[in-house]
Amino acid sequence: MSKLSSRSAVHNMKEVMKVSLGEAEADLAIVNGNIVNVYTGEVLAGDIVLIKGDKIAYVGKNADKSIGSITQVIDATGKTLIPGLIDGHTHLDFIYSVSELAKYAIKGGTTTIITEVSGFVFPLGYQGIIEFLRSARNQLIKIFVTAPSMVTINPAAKEHLLNVDQLRRLLRRKEVLGLGESYWGPVVEGDPRTINLIAETMKAGKKVEGHSAGARGNKLQAYISLGITSCHEPVTTAEVLERLRAGLTVFVREGVARSDLEAISKIKDENIDFRRLALATDGLEPDQLINNGYMEFIVQKAINLGFEPIVAIQMATINVAQHFAIDDTIGGIAPGKYADIIIIPDLKTIQPECVISNGLMVAKDGELLVQPRKHAYPKSTQNSIHLPSNFTAEDFAIPVKSSRSQVKVRVIDLITDSLTREAIIDMPVSDGLAQLDISQDILKIAAIERTHQQGKTFVGFARGTGLKYGAIASSMPTDCWDMVVIGASDADMAQAVNRIRELHGGTVVCADNKVLAELALPIGGVVSLEPMETIADKLRNIQQAVVNLGCVLPNISNTLAFLASEAVPFLRICQQGLIDIRQNRIIDLMVD
Amino acid sequence: MSKLSSRSAVHNMKEVMKVSLGEAEADLAIVNGNIVNVYTGEVLAGDIVLIKGDKIAYVGKNADKSIGSITQVIDATGKTLIPGLIDGHTHLDFIYSVSELAKYAIKGGTTTIITEVSGFVFPLGYQGIIEFLRSARNQLIKIFVTAPSMVTINPAAKEHLLNVDQLRRLLRRKEVLGLGESYWGPVVEGDPRTINLIAETMKAGKKVEGHSAGARGNKLQAYISLGITSCHEPVTTAEVLERLRAGLTVFVREGVARSDLEAISKIKDENIDFRRLALATDGLEPDQLINNGYMEFIVQKAINLGFEPIVAIQMATINVAQHFAIDDTIGGIAPGKYADIIIIPDLKTIQPECVISNGLMVAKDGELLVQPRKHAYPKSTQNSIHLPSNFTAEDFAIPVKSSRSQVKVRVIDLITDSLTREAIIDMPVSDGLAQLDISQDILKIAAIERTHQQGKTFVGFARGTGLKYGAIASSMPTDCWDMVVIGASDADMAQAVNRIRELHGGTVVCADNKVLAELALPIGGVVSLEPMETIADKLRNIQQAVVNLGCVLPNISNTLAFLASEAVPFLRICQQGLIDIRQNRIIDLMVD
Repeated sequence: MSKLSSRSAVHNMKEVMKVSLGEAEADLAIVNGNIVNVYTGEVLAGDIVLIKGDKIAYVGKNADKSIGSITQVIDATGKTLIPGLIDGHTHLDFIYSVSELAKYAIKGGTTTIITEVSGFVFPLGYQGIIEFLRSARNQLIKIFVTAPSMVTINPAAKEHLLNVDQLRRLLRRKEVLGLGESYWGPVVEGDPRTINLIAETMKAGKKVEGHSAGARGNKLQAYISLGITSCHEPVTTAEVLERLRAGLTVFVREGVARSDLEAISKIKDENIDFRRLALATDGLEPDQLINNGYMEFIVQKAINLGFEPIVAIQMATINVAQHFAIDDTIGGIAPGKYADIIIIPDLKTIQPECVISNGLMVAKDGELLVQPRKHAYPKSTQNSIHLPSNFTAEDFAIPVKSSRSQVKVRVIDLITDSLTREAIIDMPVSDGLAQLDISQDILKIAAIERTHQQGKTFVGFARGTGLKYGAIASSMPTDCWDMVVIGASDADMAQAVNRIRELHGGTVVCADNKVLAELALPIGGVVSLEPMETIADKLRNIQQAVVNLGCVLPNISNTLAFLASEAVPFLRICQQGLIDIRQNRIIDLMVD
Repeated sequence: MSKLSSRSAVHNMKEVMKVSLGEAEADLAIVNGNIVNVYTGEVLAGDIVLIKGDKIAYVGKNADKSIGSITQVIDATGKTLIPGLIDGHTHLDFIYSVSELAKYAIKGGTTTIITEVSGFVFPLGYQGIIEFLRSARNQLIKIFVTAPSMVTINPAAKEHLLNVDQLRRLLRRKEVLGLGESYWGPVVEGDPRTINLIAETMKAGKKVEGHSAGARGNKLQAYISLGITSCHEPVTTAEVLERLRAGLTVFVREGVARSDLEAISKIKDENIDFRRLALATDGLEPDQLINNGYMEFIVQKAINLGFEPIVAIQMATINVAQHFAIDDTIGGIAPGKYADIIIIPDLKTIQPECVISNGLMVAKDGELLVQPRKHAYPKSTQNSIHLPSNFTAEDFAIPVKSSRSQVKVRVIDLITDSLTREAIIDMPVSDGLAQLDISQDILKIAAIERTHQQGKTFVGFARGTGLKYGAIASSMPTDCWDMVVIGASDADMAQAVNRIRELHGGTVVCADNKVLAELALPIGGVVSLEPMETIADKLRNIQQAVVNLGCVLPNISNTLAFLASEAVPFLRICQQGLIDIRQNRIIDLMVD
């Protein structure tokens, strides 16, 4: 979305209109296709689509006068045209850069993305969003953001959150479609800062994206009553239905965090209006993008699960565009819309043979025809790990005041690879220090503030990784300024942290004083500059390394990312201590 | 919509949330009703609606804790609840004041209105909109406007149109939802001013309302390609379908200009998505409001014509709210939405027994419980008729240069009460002046610029009124600064104009030097300060007076309103001459 001056905007509008009128030649014409009309829910055969610049000029049968010597003609006989797909809720603020993601988006026909950006804001502040927006400009696809609400119960965070004035400035931008997901717990407790941000966003007429995982009944409605407009967290048909009835747009999620589509697919048999049902990824891992693809995979899955193909396509096009009120130019094949069109073999087979984005043919038969722009990130974005000095094993000691041989502590108990609960367990004490216990699979876990508080550290215990040796650390946990490190050895924990410091961010596995695997994440400590395939390799190496050390978790990077987030229940870590998500407060490690 | 400070907005949000949570008592509870859920298209039985302040706090079964001694409880056993109705395209800029209209809106359950305001802007300029917005504030119902595009081919108008800077200022207001209808003809011709306004409106992320009467195929698509988002002009099912497929929201019109619902009702049998089909009035006459009601009448008509009741209700609620992107707070019964609810006997009977607007019960059994605020219009709004002196019969003379006894002229030929065409007719010349000919039903018609050019007058001929004596004049033609007067006598024409000057605006019938009937329209020369019923009486008197003078037109006020508008084909009048709508240019009266 380049910023056109009004003058050239008017010029371009007139040029498009000339093509509609048959007074000028189109740049591109797609002929003989079956066109999915997401507005009426029809498939219309034999219309010609004329494209001028980045816009659709005409869809219909009377196009001959506009097809001339400069017009590139695509014969879509027997094929089906659908609008470019939209991911309505994702996270381009982790792991891979925008240009790397864009490759996979383009290949598969995802031409518009609405993303959260808190991953950039925690380490880099307001300037982090601005830099993200710069990286997202002129990327062949359209990328919009929601301003991060940064809901947190960490008292130390308060002074570093985005303020209302910064939010206002962001909301004035066209690329900012609203306020990003605000975790419902603290909000329903009455958190004045978030409610204020919501009020500001509504005043600006923009969307207030929600995150109501597990909420229902009165609490869900209390949250929605503030002006929340969407949720991407329902995991059952009943949860979807409850949210649709309450007026929310529901993004059914298929991504790294969860795959909910199959579980909620029974909704297709409800005789209801699906206009507010949509699809989204909530973020995808490199391997998912490489092996499955992007939104085309998810729309295909919806069709395979029995959704009417047109409904499934609407769920990833017009429904999303309408939710964000960008449907004036995005989400359908009609005059005046951006020419974002994908050609598929037939209505039930979402395998893009040709992808047109902003009027350009950008991919054909799964091959990129144009390379996304590689953004030159300034140095200032690559220096967000602020630790005063190297860590040593002693930094991970847990001193115990009493002289007992055991101490009762709260352990973060991994009940799945992302869900946790509190376990109260007696841990051995030796030399006045609480000890981990590999035999019980209880290791040390630490959160280290790495941006503002320069190394402030809290050390606790976690059960369920399976790790027998070594340590793994990452500067990429979501929703905070912390690094998280888990280890069976204090010395390896220190080394992993120190290596991240050297890399200016990353995920590192260490054992026996050696770095076993690593991925550098220099941009804000959260994003790599390497190609998607390299990142995927390195993440596989990291996973293999921890598996070799005994880890039983399917995706250690993912688990580390969530261990400091308040998004997922029930017990989390931050540099101030343990966070009880249900009580919305910080609690002590020691029980007595 | 009062401007809440952010602080009190946050306070109110928290108060609503307490009610959702069962921690505070609701102001109002509606129990035991069947609730139409416009989001899912369901009717859900037995849910309780809790209201706090102007918002809905909760919809569900677990509401006991929030119903207490301060809670007013409405028992809706056996009844149906639907959202307050929305008129998505109308004209509150003519005839009656906002507070008079509000009475009928409230009685019938219309709680949100989106209106054009060009009627205020032509006579009063930018300040006219501001004054309209003031009059629309705190009216028990919500009133939004679209900024007038003021499309005109009248060259004299150019310097008095709203400019881009004024449009920008308007678009920054929350009550301004976009750019008002721009007649497609001049726009498709490339009118740079209008295209510029459209570009500005799109830049602001707001709607560009359309007016594509009669357009189809390439011309229609050329118009839409500029970014047009709606049309309220289709008169056949085919026209509706063509526009829906092109991505427009279609407002089916039932009002003073036309009644299109019956003609297009076959669309109900198309197996298509109706999300972009909506209902609107495009303006109603006092008699229509008094005899039929407002949107409730139109929704009922849609149901009677065979639309599924829920679809018909969606067409006057969520579909409209979604079109204007005000659905975050308007258009459905759900937590966080404005408490705009009407209680009807059953799904098929749109007869509001109780109307709740902004959380207040405002009408019961068709009786108002609260009176809309009567706006105190400043003096500056009541002084828009600027004529340098009284007119005389001589001002309506049509001098002919040649000495022939006949002159070939273009006559505005009324083929219906609003459609006109050009007729080339030889008119008698006497004393060097072209004469009217009552025997052929060809009278004089004049347009008088009454705001900027202080009396500049063009006189021509019109056929088809039936008038045998006297004259009728009005300062209320749409889309211009002109008064229009038609007469069988130059002297009566002068007297009618002079009386309007005395009244500071109005519609006046004169014959034999006497005023036979009149309606004063002092606000901008277009709006009366009298009660709706008085206005209706006076309009009936005016119609009766012209019928007594021989008039065969069913509604002379209506015909006068459109005779200077470029909205309706084919031959129109302005103070510069005749306007050929198809050619988009001013043409001469004399043919040779």
